[in-house]
Order: sequence, then structure tokens, then C-alpha cells
Amino acid sequence: MSESTLPIRVVLVHTSHPGNIGAAARAMKNMGLSELHLIKPRDFPHADADARAAGAEDVLHAAIVHDDVHAAINDCGLVLGTSARQRHIPFIPLAPRESANLAVAAARAGNRVAILFGNERIGLENEVLSLCHHLVTIPTSGEYSSLNLAMAVQIIVYEILIAMSDKALSLERHEPLATSEELEHLYDHLSEILAETHFRDRARSGHVMTRVRRIFNRAQLDQNETRILRGILSAMQEVRS
Amino acid sequence: MSESTLPIRVVLVHTSHPGNIGAAARAMKNMGLSELHLIKPRDFPHADADARAAGAEDVLHAAIVHDDVHAAINDCGLVLGTSARQRHIPFIPLAPRESANLAVAAARAGNRVAILFGNERIGLENEVLSLCHHLVTIPTSGEYSSLNLAMAVQIIVYEILIAMSDKALSLERHEPLATSEELEHLYDHLSEILAETHFRDRARSGHVMTRVRRIFNRAQLDQNETRILRGILSAMQEVRS
Repeated sequence: MSESTLPIRVVLVHTSHPGNIGAAARAMKNMGLSELHLIKPRDFPHADADARAAGAEDVLHAAIVHDDVHAAINDCGLVLGTSARQRHIPFIPLAPRESANLAVAAARAGNRVAILFGNERIGLENEVLSLCHHLVTIPTSGEYSSLNLAMAVQIIVYEILIAMSDKALSLERHEPLATSEELEHLYDHLSEILAETHFRDRARSGHVMTRVRRIFNRAQLDQNETRILRGILSAMQEVRS
Repeated sequence: MSESTLPIRVVLVHTSHPGNIGAAARAMKNMGLSELHLIKPRDFPHADADARAAGAEDVLHAAIVHDDVHAAINDCGLVLGTSARQRHIPFIPLAPRESANLAVAAARAGNRVAILFGNERIGLENEVLSLCHHLVTIPTSGEYSSLNLAMAVQIIVYEILIAMSDKALSLERHEPLATSEELEHLYDHLSEILAETHFRDRARSGHVMTRVRRIFNRAQLDQNETRILRGILSAMQEVRS
């Protein structure tokens, strides 16, 4: 696979300022990426987006707009969410460099990769974070940590270009990673069983699936592993029926 | 010396768009830098600069404006010039990561460091490049290499923050580096001698001093070495008088 076509996409979620979308498109093209997905942008298309895209109108105009984040990541085997450092997120965030290495290794193994960037003011919402396999946090000065959205995209895609120049980066596993959609089917299946068994959520109510998601997202299941887990779930259902 | 006060300054030379100045100030503050110098900005102060600075108005409003680049770098022991990849520059450019390591090591040893960014359209002019000890080139995709000015600042200051987190980085030499002003005195002294001796420039006419500058800039002279060289030059002048 030619490096110039590595299947790594940038997904901008609920972006408020169209100028940031244009600047992100330019940053991507500068660093050799071209797949831009937009989830419910507030104003798009827009003259500010075109102005800031400068020579990257091709990337900007090829952007795919979705109503829902699932549509942008369903086929992805690796979903990374960017987030400012936060106190209450139970993830150990990756550094940009690590996340870029992971993204390039996964993409070289043929997996589609999505990197999600949230709204300028509120970032990625919890519901979207629960779809991410890993969080990425760009280190900043403690004094002023609020990065401009397009600047955050620039740093991540720069690290991806650097990672692409490391020919040694590869995944140790060759089985394709489970896609976001396959994982959702697994989670639906498990939820169904929890309901059938009248499982009593001893964690704070409703949070058990959040915790289960976090475990399996982090484990980065491949497609074979996902089939095995679903086989186990089906077997459990049949025993009881 | 507290890391938060490392004497590393960003120098924007002949910037056309005030929005880029504001965005650069924000990028700097995000990454823990605060010394901003502006050489003949086209429009400054300006509402666009304030708007893009967002929470970094303190850095923006403390920016020092000069008519001439010398005033911004005279006291600096390390001067780095950023440049897009170019065919005809006889420098081997540093990568952002290497240059950030060098800047942090030099600053930790007490030297003032300047990082120069040129005009949006034409970059740094040759006369300014001849003042730089090293060039830095941000790698880009071959297809579209023209980075936005503020994005280039963002990448470099991000690498500086990363380098600051590496406690092991230090210069092997402890003598303070020669400042830009001290080097200019050395070059003036040498030019004077060349004139006195009716040195015939066998390189393309007028280019000999450009080549001499390049050699000594690259050699990163310390203050003691500069004094030794000037002593030699003075001794040569006295012998002849």
C-alpha cells in the first residue's frame, strides 16, 4: 500500500467555526492526509473554510458530512479521540507521538483509522469518547491548555507524517482489527444478555456497559477475537433457552 | 532556572497577516513560551491579532516590535531560522525535534535563543538567513508543502515543550555561546582585514563573507573562542602596521 494512501481519516465533530475546518484541511494536505469527515458542522460549506484552506480546497471539498459519528467510524479498526487533559476520564491518554505510531502501524496492516476532534468549546462528548479505543492528549503548558482546534489537528497530522517516515513501524498482529461496527454488535449482544438475565448493576446504575466498553475498546480486539466472544455469548443464550 | 522561564523567543519577521501573529501568541502560551518579537509587522496592533490570540492577549500585548532583525537577536547565543525545504540553500536543515532539543539545551545553559519565522509568502530573506546558526525545516508532504505561518510556529513550540520534558537534555559545553552581536563584530573585523589586505575574492564576487559566516555560524562559537579569533585578527593587523 502506498504511504500516500494510508487509510487514516480526520473526523471533526460538531465544529463551530468553519475557518477551523478549512485550516484543518490545509494542515492535513500539508502532511499528506486527505480523508476529512465532518459530523454536523455548524456552518459548512462557508467562505471562511475556503479562505483558510488556501491550497487544500480539494481536501475541503471532498469532505464527507454525516449526521452521526457512527457513520464516520463504522468501518474503522482503530478510533482515537483527542482530548484536553481532564481529571475525571478513566483513560490513560496516549501522547501524540505514540498515537501516531499506533495509527500508522494499524493503517499499514490494512485497518482504517479515525482520529476524532471535538467541538472548540466542549471537546468530545462522553457518548463519543465511549466509542474511542484510546484517547490522545496533546501536552500543553499548565498555564493555558486550550489549544485552537486546527492547531490540534496540525500537531497530530504532523506526528503522523513523522511516523510514516519510520519504515519499521508495524503491528505485531495480522488479523484485521474489529471495526467499530463489529464492536457495537458485540456490545449490543452483551447488553441483550444482561437484560435477559436481569443482571443487577452493582456499579453505579447504568454504568456497567460504559465500563465493559472501556475494557474491550482498550483491548483492541481483532475480528477473530470478536467472533469468539460473540460465540460464547450465543452459547450462553442457547443454554438457557 | 525554572523551565517556565527558559529564554527562548519567537521572532516573526515581516509578517503580513495580523491574525497569524495572534495565533502564534496563543500557540506559544499553550506551550509555555512568552517572549514574542515582531520585525516590521505590516498591521500591528490589529483586531484580528487580538481575536486569534484568544486567551493569550498577555503574550500578544507584551510583544516587542523592532525595525530591524538585529535588535531582536543581538543578545542571542543561538539563532534558528525556519525555512521550507529549498533546493538552493547550502545548509543541512535540522528537523523540528533536533532543533527543539538544541534550543532547550542551549537555553538551559543560560544562552538566549531566538527562532525566526519569515513572511507568509516569501519566508526568511537571504540576509536574515545569513544571521542564523542553523536552519529548521518542518517536514511536509511533497504534494503541498506550504504551511500556514502560525501552524509552523505551533509545531516548533510543541516540539520545544516536548524537549523541555526531557530532563537529560543539556549542552556539553559550559562557556556561554557567542551572541549574535559578538559574531557580527567578528565578521566586521574580518571584513575590515579583507579590505585592508586587498584580498581578491576568488569565489563569486562578494560571496566570500557569506561563506565565512556560514562556517562560523555552523561552528557555534562560544565567547572564549570568539575572543581568541578576534585576538588573532588583531595580531595580524598589528604585524602589518
